[in-house]
Amino acid sequence: MRVFNFSAGPAALPEEVLRQAADEMLDWRGSGMSVMEMSHRGKEFISIHEEALADLRDLLDVPASHRILFLQGGGLGENAIVPMNLLGTKETADFVLTGSWSQKTFKEAHKYCAPHLAASGQTADGFTRSPARAEWQLSDDPAYVHLCTNETIHGVETFDIPDLGDIPLVADVSSHILSRPLDVAKFGAIYGGAQKNIGMAGVTVVIVREDLLDRALPICPSAFEWKTVAENNSMYNTPPTYAIYIAGLVFKWLKKLGGLKAIEARNIEKSKLLYSAIDSSAFYVNKVERASRSRMNVPFFLADESRNEDFLAGAKARGLLQLKGHKSVGGMRASIYNAVPLEGVKALVEYMKEFEQRQA
Amino acid sequence: MRVFNFSAGPAALPEEVLRQAADEMLDWRGSGMSVMEMSHRGKEFISIHEEALADLRDLLDVPASHRILFLQGGGLGENAIVPMNLLGTKETADFVLTGSWSQKTFKEAHKYCAPHLAASGQTADGFTRSPARAEWQLSDDPAYVHLCTNETIHGVETFDIPDLGDIPLVADVSSHILSRPLDVAKFGAIYGGAQKNIGMAGVTVVIVREDLLDRALPICPSAFEWKTVAENNSMYNTPPTYAIYIAGLVFKWLKKLGGLKAIEARNIEKSKLLYSAIDSSAFYVNKVERASRSRMNVPFFLADESRNEDFLAGAKARGLLQLKGHKSVGGMRASIYNAVPLEGVKALVEYMKEFEQRQA
Repeated sequence: MRVFNFSAGPAALPEEVLRQAADEMLDWRGSGMSVMEMSHRGKEFISIHEEALADLRDLLDVPASHRILFLQGGGLGENAIVPMNLLGTKETADFVLTGSWSQKTFKEAHKYCAPHLAASGQTADGFTRSPARAEWQLSDDPAYVHLCTNETIHGVETFDIPDLGDIPLVADVSSHILSRPLDVAKFGAIYGGAQKNIGMAGVTVVIVREDLLDRALPICPSAFEWKTVAENNSMYNTPPTYAIYIAGLVFKWLKKLGGLKAIEARNIEKSKLLYSAIDSSAFYVNKVERASRSRMNVPFFLADESRNEDFLAGAKARGLLQLKGHKSVGGMRASIYNAVPLEGVKALVEYMKEFEQRQA
Repeated sequence: MRVFNFSAGPAALPEEVLRQAADEMLDWRGSGMSVMEMSHRGKEFISIHEEALADLRDLLDVPASHRILFLQGGGLGENAIVPMNLLGTKETADFVLTGSWSQKTFKEAHKYCAPHLAASGQTADGFTRSPARAEWQLSDDPAYVHLCTNETIHGVETFDIPDLGDIPLVADVSSHILSRPLDVAKFGAIYGGAQKNIGMAGVTVVIVREDLLDRALPICPSAFEWKTVAENNSMYNTPPTYAIYIAGLVFKWLKKLGGLKAIEARNIEKSKLLYSAIDSSAFYVNKVERASRSRMNVPFFLADESRNEDFLAGAKARGLLQLKGHKSVGGMRASIYNAVPLEGVKALVEYMKEFEQRQA
């Protein structure tokens, strides 16, 4: 029996993607090979790779000014890879902090420059908001401004993306990429690990404005130098071929559903349902400012935290899995990525109501 | 129809591994989830990870002094990651060149130190031999000595591994790891991309002596700092979970076959058969010194190179795929990794004889 999987990542995948992957495992379309067995330079895999690139460009409406790269190392890897690629001759970059992930990004940047804290959404309740552009205090000459547009752990999403003019805006979009349309033209670069909305862990998508490809530090490893990766069409080193294949299947699934506007509508419906259930009850609480509430990651607390283990055990018994909150925050967290169906959220909300009634 | 796949990597995988992966794709052992969908911190994936580590330690007889890490970025990534982790306060490292891969390793090291060329196997015929220890001219105080123990492109394998005493020996073992027993204790570190004998592209195995974990440069990205990776049991960042799962299935397959001594016997038989066919004919030639001939990658040339395309087309028609030599070398190359069965080599040898007779 398939469960409803609320994992923050690696996370649920569309069942039809998994079925197709299983069906094609031993023989991809008459090639006599699994996709895992194909040379990355053979015509079979090149067709898979090109189609994934084209579908992602189409879905996100990536402008011609931007290149799409497939790398390895995930978001945490990019915390070093971004400064090594974008600092050029500048001595600082600016950081907007909205949660644990952007905190880590800020910390790692100290290895390569003197980073500047431009704004923080930290309050007495932890990270609960995304500071508006008017609150950002930029330094005089930053190489770029970094933002994490969806904080997986704290459930803080940034909906208003400012236009910074000549200063490249760089965003970690790992946990909400492809959940809604995004104006990629506003960014110098965006990056994201695949293990939330794109596919399986092991491939990192980087979308970077082509004119920024000449700013790498000499110490940047060739395998992670975006210019080298771009010049070799993501094949400077052997790419994570199977992860790219799975991502391609997910892109096709999204296109069939109607693209990002259609999935956004579904995600709005799902997240509204869950936040309404939380807000309409005194037993559950979410501390994030309404305007910054993530549609992907919904952390919540039980009024009586001594019931946490019971809550999780009861959920598991109904096939509602991986609802435990991140250890740094506690409580619960429901990650409701693209592949989590509305039925899953309905089942969760129903369970939450029943669990609350049982406490009375 | 499944083919015989002689790709240099990504390469053939054992059919029973692929069958099991397909069978478990939607529901891993009653968990209701695909392995791709599991949180890397959940008990299901932790059990997969721990079993893969234990099986690899068992297969390679890795001593307790050494840690096994799973990283991302492949061999080319490690070309930067190794010096960033091992240079410490030293200004140089030594390099033994045996082919294109060690050449790239040597070149990348210039980003981080003043590397020293200790020996080269380059001759008038290209890279055709692995220089013996007596030929290595080490510098006074190298941080480590680097060697590529199997050169995928040139088909040069190193069978005698010297003991360098206090100087850490570091080897890129990407294309022959698990093809035969290896005395890991002789090495400070070995590393390899998975896409030859371990599994699918996207995970890099690093085995490093624990006392070498305190030598990282301050610029080393946290996600690639071996100490950080070791302290977090390869979960500092989200590991490539599915690639680790597939590697684990391959480890089980190898253990069932009888381990590395058993697979070595098979590999000796396969490679002898192919080299004999080449040596017993005037129509085919392999230029590598006999003592350095790789059991994994067998490059060969047709006496009449104008027949190359015919040879490849005829091979393909029989389901013998990916035999074209690397573009930097030309000719043909049969990669006969662990998962290529003896029947595949027999079919190739038979075809080679027929093709030769047709030319007469």
